[in-house]
Amino acid sequence: MTIERLAADVAALGPLDPVAMARGQARLDRLTKPPGSLGRLEEVAVTLAGITGRADATVARKAVIVAAADHGVAARGVSAYPPEVTAQMVVNFLSGGAAICVLAARVGASLTVIDVGVAGDIPNVVDATGRGGELVRARVRSGTADMTVGPAMTLAEAESAIDAGARVAARIMERGVDVVAIGEMGIGNTTAASALTAALTGTPPGSVTGRGTGLDDAGLARKVAAVEAALAINGFGVGDAAHRPVDPRAALAAVGGLEIAALVGVVLAAVAARVPVVVDGFIAGVAVLVAERLAPGVATRCIAAHRSVEPGHAVVLGALGLAPLLDLDLRLGEGSGAALAFDLLDAAVAIRVRMASFDAAGVSGPA
Amino acid sequence: MTIERLAADVAALGPLDPVAMARGQARLDRLTKPPGSLGRLEEVAVTLAGITGRADATVARKAVIVAAADHGVAARGVSAYPPEVTAQMVVNFLSGGAAICVLAARVGASLTVIDVGVAGDIPNVVDATGRGGELVRARVRSGTADMTVGPAMTLAEAESAIDAGARVAARIMERGVDVVAIGEMGIGNTTAASALTAALTGTPPGSVTGRGTGLDDAGLARKVAAVEAALAINGFGVGDAAHRPVDPRAALAAVGGLEIAALVGVVLAAVAARVPVVVDGFIAGVAVLVAERLAPGVATRCIAAHRSVEPGHAVVLGALGLAPLLDLDLRLGEGSGAALAFDLLDAAVAIRVRMASFDAAGVSGPA
Repeated sequence: MTIERLAADVAALGPLDPVAMARGQARLDRLTKPPGSLGRLEEVAVTLAGITGRADATVARKAVIVAAADHGVAARGVSAYPPEVTAQMVVNFLSGGAAICVLAARVGASLTVIDVGVAGDIPNVVDATGRGGELVRARVRSGTADMTVGPAMTLAEAESAIDAGARVAARIMERGVDVVAIGEMGIGNTTAASALTAALTGTPPGSVTGRGTGLDDAGLARKVAAVEAALAINGFGVGDAAHRPVDPRAALAAVGGLEIAALVGVVLAAVAARVPVVVDGFIAGVAVLVAERLAPGVATRCIAAHRSVEPGHAVVLGALGLAPLLDLDLRLGEGSGAALAFDLLDAAVAIRVRMASFDAAGVSGPA
Repeated sequence: MTIERLAADVAALGPLDPVAMARGQARLDRLTKPPGSLGRLEEVAVTLAGITGRADATVARKAVIVAAADHGVAARGVSAYPPEVTAQMVVNFLSGGAAICVLAARVGASLTVIDVGVAGDIPNVVDATGRGGELVRARVRSGTADMTVGPAMTLAEAESAIDAGARVAARIMERGVDVVAIGEMGIGNTTAASALTAALTGTPPGSVTGRGTGLDDAGLARKVAAVEAALAINGFGVGDAAHRPVDPRAALAAVGGLEIAALVGVVLAAVAARVPVVVDGFIAGVAVLVAERLAPGVATRCIAAHRSVEPGHAVVLGALGLAPLLDLDLRLGEGSGAALAFDLLDAAVAIRVRMASFDAAGVSGPA
């Protein structure tokens, strides 16, 4: 399952299916409500039709895929939390105690966690809650190198991580799934996401770097400096004058992360299979941006769950042309916002399937 | 259950319970996530604690109350739909085909429809879907009079409608309910809501009047003219110079609606009983504004579900000091946006109840 093959599959899809979308919209317009009055809920229903090619697309079978990895740059004091929290939180995902476990369970979504590059050991876990995720062990390396002194990883490692994500997505889709949400865990990964956003869009580091899990002013200054150093040493110019188009794979390897790469693979595989992807926050969004650069058209088959507090997220959403469904000041990651957006997809499908038409209900149309 | 009695009960509540809120926040801060990282979800959990006085407040038992009535001003061509649609849609609510039936059912909320002033007959309905609402027949009069030529109703009629709403809310709360959502149906009622917003806030009619269910430009011009005429003939000045504080009950009677009045009663009764109220769109919001003017403090015990497309809604939310949870370009009413917001309340409570603490999960805190 090479990246080129997936990109070719995405290219072969072409634009969203206009026939399915028109049929979906026509169905919505027959229902007992003023046309368009359910706003973005109707837009979601029509987009699902366009992505899947089915006017009767459903979202009954939901999967959340969370990729986890560590970051060498965490040694630079760019996070409020110590690096061992990545492995600890993976264990928490498996034992059902994390936010994403709770939020995935309440919408009936499966939860799969990919260890694609955690630094610490992940023991086998007994889940007493019934909400714990399944673990896929696919470690490419134990955390990236410090990107402020050289590339975070090699091109081959980035490609292996993409491949790992694509394989996991393929396996989950084989079981049967209607929609996939992507999330992540990795202490230091908003720093990587900021650097990657700057490298891919040319936006200055100061505009795409935020407080992550809760940095104070000194921490934020260290983080911006780390992003600047990573971009400089890896040869990426930012700002109007210095920015040149960059190879997305090279940028991903140099200043990205293993979990971001794995999510690129998940996105490519899901999109290629016409499965809608619900995108969580900043880091998941950056993965979609890389995927879009590798396979143009990917973003049209993704649904942005929410706009996070991270300033870089708005830049990413703008570059993708995606309008988020929710705006709840979230900054947790893990796919938590995507799991919340699943409710809106469910509601959109319920409206399309269960509402009565004007004819059936004997309700008059416009005067 | 007089209005004065309910207002006194609301006044006796005082501010949101600071102890319950602090305990709720402390619980959230022990969970395995950066403090505050679930943004408005955490705010919702803490607000529920403050309203109910219980740090362990739940929202398991949900009720949607929809008030329906007709409007004499509908004869002025201010709606895209004919007046008979009000009664037809009430039948649709009872037979399970309307959007609110679908959206209430998917979150397990009960649905109660109050006919407080529909003009046409409402037959008894057989519901084959299991999603139909229960009907409360509490008609004060068969639609209001045309407010462009005089008061929409008498003060006594407005008070009877408030009382009807309060009685229905009390009956539903007796069954046991954790949270109430309010919605409405009434052809012409955005015109009344615009006039009431202008009268209560002094905002010019052109700034608070929108296209409702889908007016074209000529229809919108007619609607603005109708609002202006209603305000003028009923003695309400608008704009900075002409606006004087108005009696909320007098404004409700003169340019309001029977369903708006009934929702005022629902809000007062629920708030007085420490039951959180989830407010749907523009018309439901105006009802809260009237209730707030009758019983200051009401708005602090309400949760704004969403911001609708109607321009007057933002004015109402601003006057109430409420930040909406959702912004989905909705303009349907019926309580549809409030039913969608129930998911976020559910998620907030699930997080508080089910997530693991740092201690229990063995996850490190900030470095």
